[in-house]
Amino acid sequence: MISKNVITYVQSLQQKKARQKYQCFVAEGNKLVAELGDSDWEFESLYVKESFVATHKALCAKYHSCIQIVSDMEMERLSGLQAPQDALAVVRMKTNKSAAQNGWILVLDGVQDPGNMGTLIRSAAWFGFSQIVCSTDTVEMYNPKVIQGSMGAFVTMPIQYTDLSQYLAGQKKPIYAAVLDGKPLRKTSFSKEGILVLGNEGNGIRPEILRLVSDGITIEKAKDSKVESLNVAVAAAILMNAVTQAIN
Amino acid sequence: MISKNVITYVQSLQQKKARQKYQCFVAEGNKLVAELGDSDWEFESLYVKESFVATHKALCAKYHSCIQIVSDMEMERLSGLQAPQDALAVVRMKTNKSAAQNGWILVLDGVQDPGNMGTLIRSAAWFGFSQIVCSTDTVEMYNPKVIQGSMGAFVTMPIQYTDLSQYLAGQKKPIYAAVLDGKPLRKTSFSKEGILVLGNEGNGIRPEILRLVSDGITIEKAKDSKVESLNVAVAAAILMNAVTQAIN
Repeated sequence: MISKNVITYVQSLQQKKARQKYQCFVAEGNKLVAELGDSDWEFESLYVKESFVATHKALCAKYHSCIQIVSDMEMERLSGLQAPQDALAVVRMKTNKSAAQNGWILVLDGVQDPGNMGTLIRSAAWFGFSQIVCSTDTVEMYNPKVIQGSMGAFVTMPIQYTDLSQYLAGQKKPIYAAVLDGKPLRKTSFSKEGILVLGNEGNGIRPEILRLVSDGITIEKAKDSKVESLNVAVAAAILMNAVTQAIN
Repeated sequence: MISKNVITYVQSLQQKKARQKYQCFVAEGNKLVAELGDSDWEFESLYVKESFVATHKALCAKYHSCIQIVSDMEMERLSGLQAPQDALAVVRMKTNKSAAQNGWILVLDGVQDPGNMGTLIRSAAWFGFSQIVCSTDTVEMYNPKVIQGSMGAFVTMPIQYTDLSQYLAGQKKPIYAAVLDGKPLRKTSFSKEGILVLGNEGNGIRPEILRLVSDGITIEKAKDSKVESLNVAVAAAILMNAVTQAIN
């Protein structure tokens, strides 16, 4: 049986304040926990149902010092999901490290919605982008909706938060950006390595960041369309697909 | 002042059961309400703050018989949003009509997430698709998250729910579909008119629907990517963009 204190602690990690204080976050689901357990992320604790132990013997043995078997009812109380699965890990955050600078880099300027952020991480990993660099006001990557929405892609994707103006000013690669009044995508050619900037859902890219962009790109819409913009995760994926098709 | 009964009624429309019973749904936000008020959708009632009346005089005059001015606190009680705006309309559902069959048609086989559905409608309108045809188990278009997520695109996009096997079997246009083991997108050529099928988030397209597909398309991923799939709204948008670029 797990104590009330443990349940309160794990539940508190649904909130940013507690995550910041304890430097830990929650990851749920059999597949995600198995992937994390095999990576360089560290578990502070691991809560699993009997059924998970039976199918993940090596993983459970590896974490024998911090694993705890829980009942269905206990898992429901620990979980932030509507449909709890058989495994939940409390994972230690990593320090904000920058990755190797090669390849294509996705830059996010103030993306706010955790669902969009999760999808952006998932797409960036699909298209082989080497890392994601975010403005400090971009939604926190450890938000449970980001973690679950990335479908495991955050496990291997380097993600850092930094002063974007300073970061971009120091870059030598061409800086592309999704804008509403740029060059049509079909007329854009991409270099072998580069940076792709996407902005906030409502306000787009900040002017001080836009000034550092070398190529503003527009995804053309149908002539009679009245829609004002595309969803940011959708626009990013269309451009990342175009980059991948152009350089391979 | 509005009555408790009205508040209970409007709040109840957040639930599918009440929407089905009353054949009405809620649309919120100054811009969305203004767009709807100018379209062929019918308001059952319209709740606005004083500030909205001042900036939307013609609209408010048009709906004088069903408009009611509400206080900030009343709007908060009526609203399903975290940050209520100045206008909320209770809108009558339309009967499930099929649109003209020309152009490109987006077909959804069992999409479940309302956020994805809203984004799909928004992208389809951006790329000039003429209508969306959904399996009967696809998430309801009147779900508040679909309505808000489509960013107004549902106002003009014809959307119908039907037996997909029967619908597709009767089509003469080529039927393309997003699949994980198809022809690479870059090697796919698109006809002037066609149908594009996307499937459920977890299970993809049903076998009985897949049998009717003429061209299965795969969006290629990076060689070393471990991500299993793309988000359905992302995949759809990449393919719709490719269609638009190919036929224009």
